[in-house]
Amino acid sequence: MKQVRFHFRGIPLNNSHQNLRVAVFGLGSMGYGMASSLLTAGFPVWGFDVSREQEDRFHSEGGQQGTRLEAVKQADLVICVVVNARQTEDVLFGDEGIASVMKTGAVFMSCATVAPEFAKDMAGRLAALDVDYLDTPISGGSVKAAAGALTILGSGPPAAFDRIRPAVDAVAEKVFRLGDDIGPGSAMKVVNQLLAGVHIAAAAEAVTFALSQGIAPETTLDVISQCAGTSWMFENRVPHIVDGDYTPHSAVDIFVKDLGIVADVAHGSAFSAPLTAAALQQFLAAKGMGLGREDDSAVAKVYARNAGLSLPGEP
Amino acid sequence: MKQVRFHFRGIPLNNSHQNLRVAVFGLGSMGYGMASSLLTAGFPVWGFDVSREQEDRFHSEGGQQGTRLEAVKQADLVICVVVNARQTEDVLFGDEGIASVMKTGAVFMSCATVAPEFAKDMAGRLAALDVDYLDTPISGGSVKAAAGALTILGSGPPAAFDRIRPAVDAVAEKVFRLGDDIGPGSAMKVVNQLLAGVHIAAAAEAVTFALSQGIAPETTLDVISQCAGTSWMFENRVPHIVDGDYTPHSAVDIFVKDLGIVADVAHGSAFSAPLTAAALQQFLAAKGMGLGREDDSAVAKVYARNAGLSLPGEP
Repeated sequence: MKQVRFHFRGIPLNNSHQNLRVAVFGLGSMGYGMASSLLTAGFPVWGFDVSREQEDRFHSEGGQQGTRLEAVKQADLVICVVVNARQTEDVLFGDEGIASVMKTGAVFMSCATVAPEFAKDMAGRLAALDVDYLDTPISGGSVKAAAGALTILGSGPPAAFDRIRPAVDAVAEKVFRLGDDIGPGSAMKVVNQLLAGVHIAAAAEAVTFALSQGIAPETTLDVISQCAGTSWMFENRVPHIVDGDYTPHSAVDIFVKDLGIVADVAHGSAFSAPLTAAALQQFLAAKGMGLGREDDSAVAKVYARNAGLSLPGEP
Repeated sequence: MKQVRFHFRGIPLNNSHQNLRVAVFGLGSMGYGMASSLLTAGFPVWGFDVSREQEDRFHSEGGQQGTRLEAVKQADLVICVVVNARQTEDVLFGDEGIASVMKTGAVFMSCATVAPEFAKDMAGRLAALDVDYLDTPISGGSVKAAAGALTILGSGPPAAFDRIRPAVDAVAEKVFRLGDDIGPGSAMKVVNQLLAGVHIAAAAEAVTFALSQGIAPETTLDVISQCAGTSWMFENRVPHIVDGDYTPHSAVDIFVKDLGIVADVAHGSAFSAPLTAAALQQFLAAKGMGLGREDDSAVAKVYARNAGLSLPGEP
């Protein structure tokens, strides 16, 4: 676990891609970008989603035709880019579950943010069917997904990673290899989400606190971005608050879910995580106010309501 | 408050410096660096501290000789770099308080982190004595102080800033001018400390949470520094945890104090600040464990004790 290995894109395209057939489950903002990046790189790719519209769009852009069953029987790699653990389990073992039809020696890359124990459970059940599970949560957002420039927090058997490396290089700019077991990839993703969620809530707390002292949000953004109080999330999300634009790049609901996973994993390890708990309550309050589908920076509205303040764009 | 004006160093040294005499109160790691930077830039500077040793060291490096009374009667600028509001008030209005002996038209730069209301109170009391108060908290740490490269979060009368600008340029690399009133400078510093304190506690929570999942601190540092979960404080403080080196660059006690100020100001404005509250409790627990004088990253030890984990450098 102490060694982090990196590898980067740069594999030249060649006909060996024809030998790696990929099925992508989940054509949301992340999955669609990954599937498109694979098409661009020359792989045969099937794409499936609960939305028929997304599937049709993907076909029109060059996706392979065929049913889930036909695709999975041929696929060397299945990339699962659904929302959560429940959907992941459903793809594998639900009514139309694909686990039993996957080829011997095929690889299942799981990209949702899940608890490490869940990943271990899925890997064990797939191993009994001679399918390799890779623990590969993703980070970077929809723009990077579309550009084939995601970050993968990965762990799992090196041989499985080696077999699918050209596909990984097509979707990711940066790949952390966090160990040969299943679990560390998901654990690191959960750690990142702990910080991401706390930092978004902290940014909201700071910007609204400053407003309570008469400092406009754009001034806080300008100054703090250049001070030791800054964070990646502060610089990325506070502009949404300054603009009063809560179009969801990543929604409040995502952090209700992800900080919930952090809290559950922490609970399971008897780990006291008070900042996680405090941030989760603020996102829950945002959801309770009806803001679950708004951008996660809308957590600032909880602070503003509680303090009787008006944010930019509000009356 | 919406306009942020910047100015940068680059005033050529000239004899006009001889006309600006400066007294610095507080020769700790920040004040000594500022006083030294002023000497280097050619100003006549007196330096005073509760530690006679620090005063002697400053004399030996070129500081002016003389008593507090002699110095303050001549000084055009007094820079106060003490620890907190109580010490600031003591410098001005205590048993040996300087307020009543400062020259008419002299400027008092207050650099401690204090509540905006305290700054307004001091400014009002000094105005009655024809002395200008500038609300100028500093940021950047002792290394930047020694290099004359601090950041000043400043507010106050433009005429007073103009009179002392050569001295400000000698100690600061970046100066935010946050308004012509007293208060906004201190308010912005308090906002920065809110984020800084929450981010240090969040870094400690994340690193120890990762450890509870079997991920070594150096791996968390390597990976998260390159992910969306990063912060300035994460990258600056987690190396201390990885190295098991809690030599105080900034002590736990500082954040007990500064998050206490955030909490007090928030309370006074009926502003609910749950992340601040959670982080403050963790720093208080660190102080309670006897770690008040250790580096603020020692807040990680609270998390580790609570979870039965051993950090690097611990048995």
